[in-house]
Amino acid sequence: MATDVNAERRRREVVAQAAELFDRTGYHTTNVAALAEAAGLRKATLYHYFAGKDEILFLIHEEFIDLLLAKELRRRSLPPADALLEVMVDVLELMRTHRGHVRVFFEHHRELSPGRRETIRRKRDAYQAAVEAIVRRGAGDGSFRDVDPRLTTLAVFGMCNWAYQWYAPEGPLSPREIGERFFDLVFNGLRER
Amino acid sequence: MATDVNAERRRREVVAQAAELFDRTGYHTTNVAALAEAAGLRKATLYHYFAGKDEILFLIHEEFIDLLLAKELRRRSLPPADALLEVMVDVLELMRTHRGHVRVFFEHHRELSPGRRETIRRKRDAYQAAVEAIVRRGAGDGSFRDVDPRLTTLAVFGMCNWAYQWYAPEGPLSPREIGERFFDLVFNGLRER
Repeated sequence: MATDVNAERRRREVVAQAAELFDRTGYHTTNVAALAEAAGLRKATLYHYFAGKDEILFLIHEEFIDLLLAKELRRRSLPPADALLEVMVDVLELMRTHRGHVRVFFEHHRELSPGRRETIRRKRDAYQAAVEAIVRRGAGDGSFRDVDPRLTTLAVFGMCNWAYQWYAPEGPLSPREIGERFFDLVFNGLRER
Repeated sequence: MATDVNAERRRREVVAQAAELFDRTGYHTTNVAALAEAAGLRKATLYHYFAGKDEILFLIHEEFIDLLLAKELRRRSLPPADALLEVMVDVLELMRTHRGHVRVFFEHHRELSPGRRETIRRKRDAYQAAVEAIVRRGAGDGSFRDVDPRLTTLAVFGMCNWAYQWYAPEGPLSPREIGERFFDLVFNGLRER
């Protein structure tokens, strides 16, 4: 049992190191030998933990979307505006703590094998549906205008997800501060009244 | 002279076909032989037009950002809110007409050689500065709230650029209709008044 827990922890560490390495050197140019080296393992040992690069790619995807789904679940009891703000902050926070995961999730889902891609697609759809439900809840209780829930969700995802292209941990604003300003923009609008 | 014009047109066609092929089969798995085949050229003939894959990658980037810069220039005389709407529509329209260019531009700038990456970065920065100037102009003439121009521009870019992940030409809304709804969201806000 202790061995299983250790193996699981070791697997998670290798996945985290792989995500970082993919971000730094590119997914396509990073082979299993480089992944093993980064993890301080021999290539044969790495193959003891994983079937190959595709499985590691899948686990990066799964960890990332599972984190978002778990966070969203904790927002369910909040009023819609507060829940939406936290959803926006969640993904921005992950850019600080899980930078490599983020790039892989946004740029390499097409490289997953079909069965694994389908598993991730279902979880991604579940997450999108949960955020659409927040927008619908806000329109229902009168805190939001009666907007298209799907398009609004895609707009909010875009604002926040796109930050992986420009967010720098050393920048002047924390992920939460960026999330708060983005929420202010989308909630209160740009128009002077 | 006629030959130069023909060569230039031929080059543009090959670049357009390469962008489509990269989008369909992935940049990294597409080699020069495949690019030549898609263009109906022998590999040696393709090398007559281009030094290699890196030059084609650069030309896709340059065409895309030059198109956006040229469109933005035509928006300069519009009131800030109208200019911002058109900026949002511009990039969404390019997802219909230049789908391959869009993915390459957003996902493969890190693969450009350093000198070429710098050329594209300068044009990209010029485009961002032009959109920030629209936001500043709107805050100045009282049509927009006094928001942070850079963060607002990045939010607007995110909303629209992210659509390359989900936009489908066969979907119910045209790029302009999506742009109009996104503009309404960011201009009027989500809050019920």
